[in-house]
Amino acid sequence: MRRSERIALISKTLSENPNKIISLNYFGQWLGAAKSSISEDLDIIKNAYKNSGQGELTTIPGAAGGVRYRTKRSADQIKAFLEGLSNALQDQKRIIPGGYLYMTDVVFAPEYSSKIGEIFAQLFIDKDPTHVLTVETKGIPIAFMTAKALNVPMVVARRDSRVTEGPSVGISYVSGSGQKIHNMSLAKRALPENSRVLIVDDFMKGGGTAQGMRELVAEFKAQVVGTAMVVTTAVPEKKLVEDFTTLLILEGIDTNKGEIKISINNKLIG
Amino acid sequence: MRRSERIALISKTLSENPNKIISLNYFGQWLGAAKSSISEDLDIIKNAYKNSGQGELTTIPGAAGGVRYRTKRSADQIKAFLEGLSNALQDQKRIIPGGYLYMTDVVFAPEYSSKIGEIFAQLFIDKDPTHVLTVETKGIPIAFMTAKALNVPMVVARRDSRVTEGPSVGISYVSGSGQKIHNMSLAKRALPENSRVLIVDDFMKGGGTAQGMRELVAEFKAQVVGTAMVVTTAVPEKKLVEDFTTLLILEGIDTNKGEIKISINNKLIG
Repeated sequence: MRRSERIALISKTLSENPNKIISLNYFGQWLGAAKSSISEDLDIIKNAYKNSGQGELTTIPGAAGGVRYRTKRSADQIKAFLEGLSNALQDQKRIIPGGYLYMTDVVFAPEYSSKIGEIFAQLFIDKDPTHVLTVETKGIPIAFMTAKALNVPMVVARRDSRVTEGPSVGISYVSGSGQKIHNMSLAKRALPENSRVLIVDDFMKGGGTAQGMRELVAEFKAQVVGTAMVVTTAVPEKKLVEDFTTLLILEGIDTNKGEIKISINNKLIG
Repeated sequence: MRRSERIALISKTLSENPNKIISLNYFGQWLGAAKSSISEDLDIIKNAYKNSGQGELTTIPGAAGGVRYRTKRSADQIKAFLEGLSNALQDQKRIIPGGYLYMTDVVFAPEYSSKIGEIFAQLFIDKDPTHVLTVETKGIPIAFMTAKALNVPMVVARRDSRVTEGPSVGISYVSGSGQKIHNMSLAKRALPENSRVLIVDDFMKGGGTAQGMRELVAEFKAQVVGTAMVVTTAVPEKKLVEDFTTLLILEGIDTNKGEIKISINNKLIG
């Protein structure tokens, strides 16, 4: 096999397996090449990715070592993506009677949710999360793509416990906006003790749901290492959770003028 | 930029954008190369993918033309994957009191659901689906990965209608196994008339939920082009939907012996 063919296959494999360490022996045996040749192939791929902002290859030495691919967007790339996302969400057809913002199609669209998941992974990878947690339903694709980019499992809290998932731990929580009481539960076997949990959701207003997830994590004797939202409302300014990261801020919806105002969280991109 | 560097980047882009036609001009401008060079790069990638069972590149001629990547697994590759999946699911720790099978972690795991989505896409791509439909919650990651592999939107029916999604269409249906009545609804704006819908879910017993989804699709004046399940129970043999495709068959769970029996749907792989 020629070098260019090997590179096509190695590049595909790495980009399909983010944050996974793959040994050079694996590639060598699969592609019938010496380790030194694979090593040269990887240098070429590494440079090509780096020079075009397509992510980062890292060589991990040692017996359990190999090569690892991670997406790594520059501040400019993230900003450009968030501007596109913000524009898509500011379409006035998205105003739902009652002053809500329809964003289901966007968070369910592979083109957006893949990139959102990659950005969340990039922002929190140094916290070494072992699990990504969301609560059903709308946040699932984004939580899933974040888990995929981090190469960790996703767990999903249910609104009510399911007989098909066995014993579960449930909590009640008060929504941040209203005064309604909600329930949330998670199968006991879904989350081991001492897990490092990244909480992901599509939308936050008062923060009640996010706070509920924090309490649920505590019930599992696990630890929250971050809370990541796609859109957070500007009002109320004070949320039930203090420490969170949001990509976009929903400044307001003017149902009379038919205007949605969304800004990019500039703190995010420095 | 050297050929090998271009190939690393083109291979990554194609595998990250399945079933999307990307013009040669796009690659040419991005990578600063003549169309003829890009064309030669693509031939190398195409052969490398083909010879190692990594998918199919197709060149689409004409003004809207370009190159398109699709996963394409051989019958042997699919069989090997399904054997691994079946083994993972037959672990006796998965038996839930009441005789249920715990499979949430598997359908939520990126390593499994990515491949299941790709296999569903491969099986139904000739039916030209425009949308993938599931009902919350457990089927979402698989439906999402199927939609990603097909490059079409995913839509998710809710168990109850949501004020934040605007006007919706709802139906009631009777579960195939019990005699319980359930509700399912979908935002009006989520599915256009004349859509070609692929129904995807993780588990089917009586087929009531799948039948509910069919009725919901009919309410939208859309058409069901396929129904794809990960696991279907052998009993009852007669389901409420007749035309469906399943990857695995749950033959039975013996709670006394602690045995789960799952077989591969051999019809699938010929």
